Amino acid sequence: MTSIIRNESRKLLGVVLSKNAPTLVKNFSVSSARRMRFVQYRLKKGGPQQLGAQISSNGDIFDISGVDHSIPNSLVKFLANGNGIYEKAKRIVADGKSITPLDDVDLLPPITKPDKVVCVGLNYSGHCEEQNIPRPKEPMFFSKFSSVIVGPNDDVQIPPITNSVDWEVELAVVIGRKGKAISQHEVKDYIFGYTVAQDISARDWQKSRNNGQFLLGKSMDTFCPLGPAVVTKNKVDPNNLSIKSWVNGALKQNGNTSELIFKIDFLVSYLSQIVTLYPGDVILTGTPAGVGMHRSPPEFLKKGDVLESEIEGIGRLRNVVV
Amino acid sequence: MTSIIRNESRKLLGVVLSKNAPTLVKNFSVSSARRMRFVQYRLKKGGPQQLGAQISSNGDIFDISGVDHSIPNSLVKFLANGNGIYEKAKRIVADGKSITPLDDVDLLPPITKPDKVVCVGLNYSGHCEEQNIPRPKEPMFFSKFSSVIVGPNDDVQIPPITNSVDWEVELAVVIGRKGKAISQHEVKDYIFGYTVAQDISARDWQKSRNNGQFLLGKSMDTFCPLGPAVVTKNKVDPNNLSIKSWVNGALKQNGNTSELIFKIDFLVSYLSQIVTLYPGDVILTGTPAGVGMHRSPPEFLKKGDVLESEIEGIGRLRNVVV
Repeated sequence: MTSIIRNESRKLLGVVLSKNAPTLVKNFSVSSARRMRFVQYRLKKGGPQQLGAQISSNGDIFDISGVDHSIPNSLVKFLANGNGIYEKAKRIVADGKSITPLDDVDLLPPITKPDKVVCVGLNYSGHCEEQNIPRPKEPMFFSKFSSVIVGPNDDVQIPPITNSVDWEVELAVVIGRKGKAISQHEVKDYIFGYTVAQDISARDWQKSRNNGQFLLGKSMDTFCPLGPAVVTKNKVDPNNLSIKSWVNGALKQNGNTSELIFKIDFLVSYLSQIVTLYPGDVILTGTPAGVGMHRSPPEFLKKGDVLESEIEGIGRLRNVVV
Repeated sequence: MTSIIRNESRKLLGVVLSKNAPTLVKNFSVSSARRMRFVQYRLKKGGPQQLGAQISSNGDIFDISGVDHSIPNSLVKFLANGNGIYEKAKRIVADGKSITPLDDVDLLPPITKPDKVVCVGLNYSGHCEEQNIPRPKEPMFFSKFSSVIVGPNDDVQIPPITNSVDWEVELAVVIGRKGKAISQHEVKDYIFGYTVAQDISARDWQKSRNNGQFLLGKSMDTFCPLGPAVVTKNKVDPNNLSIKSWVNGALKQNGNTSELIFKIDFLVSYLSQIVTLYPGDVILTGTPAGVGMHRSPPEFLKKGDVLESEIEGIGRLRNVVV
């Protein structure tokens, strides 16, 4: 088994890896669970952030951290606790002791303060074609600061230093378990679930400033809407999901994750050869064709626009541009 | 005052900014304090991480979080608490109730889990000259994942996927207070202190992989040694500090922060126009000439090497390469 992993990893990175076996750490498996939708929320009437779960899209919220105060109100901390706490959360949901109507809450970002928000560039064939760039031979990763994450219904701010803010709907993977040098076969054990992300981008800064480094153009405040929930991986086929975005009701992106050039298992395994992945890490997997920059004429977001982003079976973000 | 800030910010970024005044938030001023050296440590005999302070380089440690359990054992959380807790910590140190011999502790990284570790490229004239690159017209920022921070005496790992790991000693700024669109005149109120950093870099990945994005080559596990302490800013002139590194005792870098192309006040103000800065954020300010890549022949770190990194008045890192 170890030799299989080694050979695969060599092939993956195009370099010779050491003989070290992959690092296997505390388990967070989600076997035999029903699909759950984890949310972070706050009651409209006030109070602290809470962790809860839906069992259907747009369903009411089964309170978790509010029922058992030993459970963290943060999904990152929840995941860092390992499998035991997840089993406890499932029992709380099964008991259904405390259910809050969805109408009574404000949904917060389902993940806050992860160690990393990593993004993959150029990962849909259509997005390569629209900018006349060949399909990449290896994935390209860049990052956003965790503090720029906002919720599924939060405003996206256009800062005064840019006039070319663009949209990119993306499927985001949420890591459930610490891991390094994970083989592609094992990736499924390290993924907790999926959410919808917007990789908001200031194209002037991304393309023409900061000496070619994407960081600043991708990491302005509010440039990472996430949500509405982190949907556990059970029965989700991440390689066959409709993915769409709209601006003011007009369809702009209309793709399918089947177009991914580098698939989820490959991306997670590849990244884990470079750096340890931690529970709660968020990996944005690229955007399909239809971004504003490559339209003719180019289109950018302006104050008052309503940006909607949807992935099949996960949900929809609705962010107003301010 | 607002118009001065606006005009300065316009000049700073070369773009027109809005008329919004800068965001001013909860204060963390360090006025009239004596210079203190904040450390995170663990007793060699075991136990939890603690927050403490030295009042001299290589001095024994005044316990802080161990004396008052209402004070967090993390410098990031300590700074997020604002000025009141800092005054409390100063009183604890003044009282000197509990002092632990330096020999009895392992120093941890003085900062862990900040929202961001941001690095500036090409910021010493000598480092530009050694690679025949003109001095940049604006600063270039890239980042490391927070999880790759290690302590002042920790090992630096050469991962199996690279054979060109290089050194870069850097002065790191630690932010004390949340801020956005900070004017250069105000930056001093937002800085908590300074520490020594190593911006360890896998040159093959930085230069030839990942489609030109520095992230992966700069963010492998253990690629950000920090420490030994965060020295509060009082009486530190960050623009006139000797900065050096050695490999196996041979001097490799020998510069002075007076060579900084973009000074600290400018860098912090500039970055804060892009994104909100948070307490504990770490900004690495660039490296002087003498890195391995530009030597003739090029030199890279190998297993068993001892890398030492020192900045006048702050301290020295000693990291063994494994």
